[in-house]
Amino acid sequence: MSEMQDRHITEAFDRDLEAIQALIMKMGGMVEAAILDSAKALEERDEELARQVRENDKQIDRLEEQVNEECARVIALRGPVARDLRTILTVMKISANLERCGDYAKNLAKRTTVLVQMQPVDGSAKSIRRMAREVELMMKDALDAYIQRDAELAEDVRQRDAEVDQMYNALFREFLTHMMEDPRNITSCMHLHFIAKNIERMGDHVTAIAEQVIYLVTGVLPEDNRPKGDRTSFAAPGET
Amino acid sequence: MSEMQDRHITEAFDRDLEAIQALIMKMGGMVEAAILDSAKALEERDEELARQVRENDKQIDRLEEQVNEECARVIALRGPVARDLRTILTVMKISANLERCGDYAKNLAKRTTVLVQMQPVDGSAKSIRRMAREVELMMKDALDAYIQRDAELAEDVRQRDAEVDQMYNALFREFLTHMMEDPRNITSCMHLHFIAKNIERMGDHVTAIAEQVIYLVTGVLPEDNRPKGDRTSFAAPGET
Repeated sequence: MSEMQDRHITEAFDRDLEAIQALIMKMGGMVEAAILDSAKALEERDEELARQVRENDKQIDRLEEQVNEECARVIALRGPVARDLRTILTVMKISANLERCGDYAKNLAKRTTVLVQMQPVDGSAKSIRRMAREVELMMKDALDAYIQRDAELAEDVRQRDAEVDQMYNALFREFLTHMMEDPRNITSCMHLHFIAKNIERMGDHVTAIAEQVIYLVTGVLPEDNRPKGDRTSFAAPGET
Repeated sequence: MSEMQDRHITEAFDRDLEAIQALIMKMGGMVEAAILDSAKALEERDEELARQVRENDKQIDRLEEQVNEECARVIALRGPVARDLRTILTVMKISANLERCGDYAKNLAKRTTVLVQMQPVDGSAKSIRRMAREVELMMKDALDAYIQRDAELAEDVRQRDAEVDQMYNALFREFLTHMMEDPRNITSCMHLHFIAKNIERMGDHVTAIAEQVIYLVTGVLPEDNRPKGDRTSFAAPGET
């Protein structure tokens, strides 16, 4: 292949990649909004907003399909190798993680629809919203890190996941206490607990995105050495 | 490119694909074992078996990495297009879904380590084990469907996920009842509930594998028209 042809292919690939990255950014923006709105709907008991979050998730799903199709098209058409191929495969992983976060936000919105029928549990929705905000900020930074190819920022996001895990552990204890104090809280606390767990899982997916960025920039997937995580599976809170 | 060269590339691709499929089958076997063993460890309160499940998960994770690396290598080396490319991308998605199921089994095993310290909750571990068996059978069939390129069997797997969802809904009600009857059951029921939910999620991942098989064979990703699912987010059991 001549140098000229080579350059044409590279330029074409770069254009394609930019178009796909634009889709990722759009998806990221929608997922960030879904996280914030679902937590807001829960705290403000806003059923209409919860309904919107559920409705918007369909668009997020469609965007993921579009990213997959575009990536497959670019691989087939441009035959990327080495770093370019790694970039395309990374993009597919990032969009899969975004889609999962969107699903969790949708699930949060669904449970909100149930929870508004019940007696609120003191302060819980506020704590959950704080946790959701933290995850949304992590996601914003993870996507920035991707666009800037900033491994340091990505590493920072990764470390911050431990804070989300701590918030979850605190909430788990809070819910157990509410349930034991008053059995009428049991059903709503089960739902709230799921919501908290799902936000904690979103944090894991954002962390996975950050790790993909680190892999993309450095070529090495970080070892699992960050402080983990959900400790409720190791010891029942109050018994540690 | 000459016809001869073409045929060589096709043969080389087929050989590569077979090697990757062998990895997927190995991974599938390990994940199936993890599902069954983790549920067995829970019912029989076998801490050593639970420890083994957690240990084995590292191997499953390594296999997923290996699949990803091999797929990237094959794409770079053989430049597959159309159906071949679709196959490779499908394989990557299947291995990601298998890895998630492995994670859920590991989580089940972790919670078992906590639960053996507590008073057992009547009959729950037995019901959970039945649910795990159902999911393991679905996974076996989903992987068979992949190897045989059998869209009909994959569709069958997809439909069976509704049964797993029903099992989960029944367990959710059971746990709520136990918690309301005796607050001393609350902590263990929270863990058991998580376990049940995680098995239900494994079912979703197996369904995703089945859908990938359908996509691979027919070129069309099935519409979301199967009977869904976890109804606990729509209405609290006992209140429907």
